[in-house]
Amino acid sequence: MSNKMKRNQRIVYISQYFVTHPNELIGLSYFSDYFNSAKSSISEDIDFVRGIFEETEIGVIETIAGVQGGMIFKPAYSDVKTNELMDEIRQKLTEGKRILPGNYVYLADLLQDPRLLDNIAKLIAVKYQKEEIDAVVTIETKGIGLCVAVAKYLNVPHVVVRRSSSEMDGSTISVNYVSGSHQRVSKMELSKVSLKAGSKVLIIDDFLRNGGTMIGLMNLIEEFDCKTVGICVFVESTYRDHEPIPNYDSLLKVEIVYNKEESRFELQSELGTFFE
Amino acid sequence: MSNKMKRNQRIVYISQYFVTHPNELIGLSYFSDYFNSAKSSISEDIDFVRGIFEETEIGVIETIAGVQGGMIFKPAYSDVKTNELMDEIRQKLTEGKRILPGNYVYLADLLQDPRLLDNIAKLIAVKYQKEEIDAVVTIETKGIGLCVAVAKYLNVPHVVVRRSSSEMDGSTISVNYVSGSHQRVSKMELSKVSLKAGSKVLIIDDFLRNGGTMIGLMNLIEEFDCKTVGICVFVESTYRDHEPIPNYDSLLKVEIVYNKEESRFELQSELGTFFE
Repeated sequence: MSNKMKRNQRIVYISQYFVTHPNELIGLSYFSDYFNSAKSSISEDIDFVRGIFEETEIGVIETIAGVQGGMIFKPAYSDVKTNELMDEIRQKLTEGKRILPGNYVYLADLLQDPRLLDNIAKLIAVKYQKEEIDAVVTIETKGIGLCVAVAKYLNVPHVVVRRSSSEMDGSTISVNYVSGSHQRVSKMELSKVSLKAGSKVLIIDDFLRNGGTMIGLMNLIEEFDCKTVGICVFVESTYRDHEPIPNYDSLLKVEIVYNKEESRFELQSELGTFFE
Repeated sequence: MSNKMKRNQRIVYISQYFVTHPNELIGLSYFSDYFNSAKSSISEDIDFVRGIFEETEIGVIETIAGVQGGMIFKPAYSDVKTNELMDEIRQKLTEGKRILPGNYVYLADLLQDPRLLDNIAKLIAVKYQKEEIDAVVTIETKGIGLCVAVAKYLNVPHVVVRRSSSEMDGSTISVNYVSGSHQRVSKMELSKVSLKAGSKVLIIDDFLRNGGTMIGLMNLIEEFDCKTVGICVFVESTYRDHEPIPNYDSLLKVEIVYNKEESRFELQSELGTFFE
């Protein structure tokens, strides 16, 4: 900055910087260099911003001590906002044609919506940001948007497992898995360089049905010598028993029920294991 | 807010709110209700924030007059940041094994990186936010991350065209296209409800090679009675002539050249048509 800024000018810049860099370690010197101000002044600025962020439930600015230290902004998602979001999604699930042939559920419009996607991703990231996740993994295609959005809030790479070999992937590791109601054996694979050994992985998907795909993903992650530390799906179906999956979260459980009066199937939803 | 906030407290909240809601119309009453403050005070707060946002090249807060009016934050991406970003990406393209069998280029690591992805997406969105885009469209799989990230900045839905029929999509519209060096005819399709007629569409993809896929996407968008108002790819290859595509942007052009001294093929890059 060419003109020396005052406190209330600096806090505008500092506020926007933290919220656009969630879960990123930011050194005090970044701001003191940018403003050409003493670190003690910047510290006071940050204390002020921290107070407002906490009061308005935007999130917390954590301080990491030491030479390699700095500040990390961890977003929050208030209970009020959570309830509003889940109510809105459950309302939307009652609207339009949701039940597709084969008892699939149409969800794409919800995860395409930029505001809903951002809020769902933030809600998920806020829960998992304690876990020191190294990568967020999904399998193509419908869960990718949510995976990308969660990875942005956690500030880690998003990794997309492929269902079929692609010319462009280089060498891969693959596993077989059992998918769908027909118990068909398929292959999923991931480029060898896409996931570092030892990574702590969060699996994200849009829909959990039979669970076979999820078990395949967990096996594949193990093949990369990585550890699945969390599984979170947007919606799980309860109308069919699925394979036992350890410690997964779902934002919503849905069931297809027959409405006798209106002679049609409809979707009923309740909050999922994420909120237990 | 239960406690009445002062100006320098309100501007922290207002600053973070604008940058996390790019290209979204925000009424003055949102803030005046939130703070329980007079609209005149909020207007002064916003004028103050606007000044700092412009001085530090964060973006502009535009005012839309009228009953349906409000403010829209349009992010900026400075020339200095643009040069730094493109230099970093071009440097990364010289590192590691980039050239895959069939002259494909490995780019996944760049678009998986949350910081690079966010910056590339912001750079693209800043150029196209003037165009009143209604949806950002890509074809599975590798461009989806960029598509989602651009759509977030433009505050519009992201739409993913499928290469093969999926059980979960409901009724679809499909077109044939010619892909790859073998000139193979394939089918791409999109769920009928995914794109509203009359939408102005920005097409995003990671890599432009032969152009056949891009022409397929443009045809498909036309089938939906929508208009392609922009095409932007991360990287285009110049080592092969591609189909004539009207008015597309590429961030980078790459060429595979043989390095005689080191007896190996390597990637050379230059800035693409995006910067012309």
